[in-house]
Amino acid sequence: MRGRFVTFEGGEGAGKSTQIARAAEWLRARGVEVVLTREPGGTPRAERLRTILLERGAEPMPQSCELLLMFAARATHLENLVRPAIARGAWVLCDRFTDATYAYQGGGRGLPSEQIDALAGIVHADLWPDLTLLIDLPVDAGLARASSRNGAHGPDRFESEQQAFFERVRATYLERAQAEPARFRVIDGSRSIDAVTGAIEAALAPLLEASR
Amino acid sequence: MRGRFVTFEGGEGAGKSTQIARAAEWLRARGVEVVLTREPGGTPRAERLRTILLERGAEPMPQSCELLLMFAARATHLENLVRPAIARGAWVLCDRFTDATYAYQGGGRGLPSEQIDALAGIVHADLWPDLTLLIDLPVDAGLARASSRNGAHGPDRFESEQQAFFERVRATYLERAQAEPARFRVIDGSRSIDAVTGAIEAALAPLLEASR
Repeated sequence: MRGRFVTFEGGEGAGKSTQIARAAEWLRARGVEVVLTREPGGTPRAERLRTILLERGAEPMPQSCELLLMFAARATHLENLVRPAIARGAWVLCDRFTDATYAYQGGGRGLPSEQIDALAGIVHADLWPDLTLLIDLPVDAGLARASSRNGAHGPDRFESEQQAFFERVRATYLERAQAEPARFRVIDGSRSIDAVTGAIEAALAPLLEASR
Repeated sequence: MRGRFVTFEGGEGAGKSTQIARAAEWLRARGVEVVLTREPGGTPRAERLRTILLERGAEPMPQSCELLLMFAARATHLENLVRPAIARGAWVLCDRFTDATYAYQGGGRGLPSEQIDALAGIVHADLWPDLTLLIDLPVDAGLARASSRNGAHGPDRFESEQQAFFERVRATYLERAQAEPARFRVIDGSRSIDAVTGAIEAALAPLLEASR
């Protein structure tokens, strides 16, 4: 049967990386083939685009370029990794997807959501996640966690944004979750790591039941 | 005063590279600051995207990814090179622009022109060329020239397309020229190199007069 497409969303320091790895482990222990991936990235070409997107180079990055590169990376990732995996029955767990584009490029940068709608229509009109887990956390708390993590290599082009940017990102995520309650589960990311893991497993369990 | 934006279009082997260099020389001899550039490419980031677009790698290139990368490269090229040059009064001569996207991705690959319209609207709604020189040549003749040129390094991802693809490219170019006669000049590329140069200079002369 067809697999599942589950996306993990949230701001800086929300704990996505830890939680997505735990969710993969939990599903694998239940006999599910899991493909763990991320955006931007996930295939060799998309990872090269990710490097271009995140690096802080000398050439200024126009907002429209950033938006188009996000969807270009998404197009090759979906076609060459996500869609084939779902088609063979695997569960794809993806760290960020188009909701992040609405949150960061739309809410954060202020690009019109109609532009994002148009690009999503070109790239994946027929494919949206079965379930989106939004790990929500106040911006202050997330930035404190993220900055302790980024001490060594320094922030990338997104991590170096200001607090007001991340407040808009968070607000956009929450608006999208409210507008699509059937697809989203909002997870309180301020709790302990184990409590968050438990909430995510509770959200995955009915989808797993329905797949058997 | 504001500079000018002149684009050179045409299929494989039409002689664009030779002619654009000669046009630059002709304009410089008349005291014009000329910026000679190309698409995809023209800035460091856009040239990296060009490499990704042209290479024949293992990862299949979805049509939507190709289209989005073209416009992502265009966005950074326009913002960081073309617009500043025009603003300071230079003439920008560009080897291919959005008409090539309509011809190759629209006509050649069959992508809906509405998608290209939408992306052009996001990236450069306010900026179209002052003049577009379409060097037109029967596909047979162009491919014969291009294949003799590409003997050493082998064809890139576009050059390796079939004749029917290039026929659709040529037809789309000619349709666009017919639809926008004020912007386009169709140059018969089957004549001698010098005759083509003469026709291009004749098309540039009135624009130069009007700029003085």
